[in-house]
Amino acid sequence: MKLYSYFRSSASYRVRIALNLKNLPYEYVPVHLLRDGGEQLKPEYRCVHPDGIVPALVEDGQPAIQQSLAIIEYLEETHPEPPLLPRSAVDRAHARSIALQVACEIHPLDNLRVLKYLKHTMRVEDDAKDAWYRYWIELGFSTLETRLAADPRTGALCVGDTPTIADLCLIPQIFNANRFKIDTTRYPTLQRIYDHAMQIDAFAQAAPGEQPDSE
Amino acid sequence: MKLYSYFRSSASYRVRIALNLKNLPYEYVPVHLLRDGGEQLKPEYRCVHPDGIVPALVEDGQPAIQQSLAIIEYLEETHPEPPLLPRSAVDRAHARSIALQVACEIHPLDNLRVLKYLKHTMRVEDDAKDAWYRYWIELGFSTLETRLAADPRTGALCVGDTPTIADLCLIPQIFNANRFKIDTTRYPTLQRIYDHAMQIDAFAQAAPGEQPDSE
Repeated sequence: MKLYSYFRSSASYRVRIALNLKNLPYEYVPVHLLRDGGEQLKPEYRCVHPDGIVPALVEDGQPAIQQSLAIIEYLEETHPEPPLLPRSAVDRAHARSIALQVACEIHPLDNLRVLKYLKHTMRVEDDAKDAWYRYWIELGFSTLETRLAADPRTGALCVGDTPTIADLCLIPQIFNANRFKIDTTRYPTLQRIYDHAMQIDAFAQAAPGEQPDSE
Repeated sequence: MKLYSYFRSSASYRVRIALNLKNLPYEYVPVHLLRDGGEQLKPEYRCVHPDGIVPALVEDGQPAIQQSLAIIEYLEETHPEPPLLPRSAVDRAHARSIALQVACEIHPLDNLRVLKYLKHTMRVEDDAKDAWYRYWIELGFSTLETRLAADPRTGALCVGDTPTIADLCLIPQIFNANRFKIDTTRYPTLQRIYDHAMQIDAFAQAAPGEQPDSE
């Protein structure tokens, strides 16, 4: 398997955790999102992923799989152990809904290409751009904190004590928020889950600083 | 089952199509996103969905299920017929990746609360707000058009000739774009799929104009 990845991409980070947890070896293919106007926008990469975003997973001769959550569900179906989803349908929905709350309500608003549009196309001031980043991350984290603090299914991690798709999305988003100087200790449940996850090798080794293209 | 929904919400629309395709009866609970500052932000609704967004699905006494794609995967697991995902893992990933391309790359940037933030908090001009809407929808649709036009798995619908999770996301997004006066005939494959889907009762009856809270 080849994973097209950028060390700082949260979506790539989710998939790296999944591959590590399932103990699947893979070739890391770096795609630099900033160098040279963005390698993800070059024709070479567009053949793999016409959308020009990372990550993409390619398995010998199969069509490339795009979108981090589709890749994770694919890995779950093709390599079920250890599972990244709970057993019961209701709990699986719960884990997926936490993952999607990060993937649909926070990350799309605060990723690199959106911040670039605000700055270069809409020409908003840096202060307004930073306020935008903070607004969506704080809105998302405060509702997630409320949910997870109240839900009896929350354990050492988002759903119980073993990693699920929910943690695969939450941990990279907290890492990203810290990089943007958001004080995540204001979300004690999220921070506790993050601290716990970072003790697990599969999470720690998927972090941006551990990747071959890290700067 | 109770579905908390707003007639114009694209995410609610996705779930309505799923419920119709699987022929599952449900109680429609309208949540008006604009009236009175937004009913989704009132404490009554926050008990169901702390995030203050629609849709949410509640089944007798179970915790509410949030996030449209988590609800659809839940319905798929608990009511497998007719399936909304293809058979093979690679094709399932393909269908999910199209769904996620809409749900993560287009819809989060162009939904009501984001447009409200641009207008009222960031105070950008209407022209800049409209350009923002167009930019993300045209970027998303043009890459989807390229993907679907080139992929041999594309049929009368996104993946073959029977509805999948991909169509559940694409059709409401095209409906929404048309409401915002985007000319979707520039995306002939997407338009053809839309026209075909709208001939199917489950899609037509899930449309905003057919809902009890339609205005």
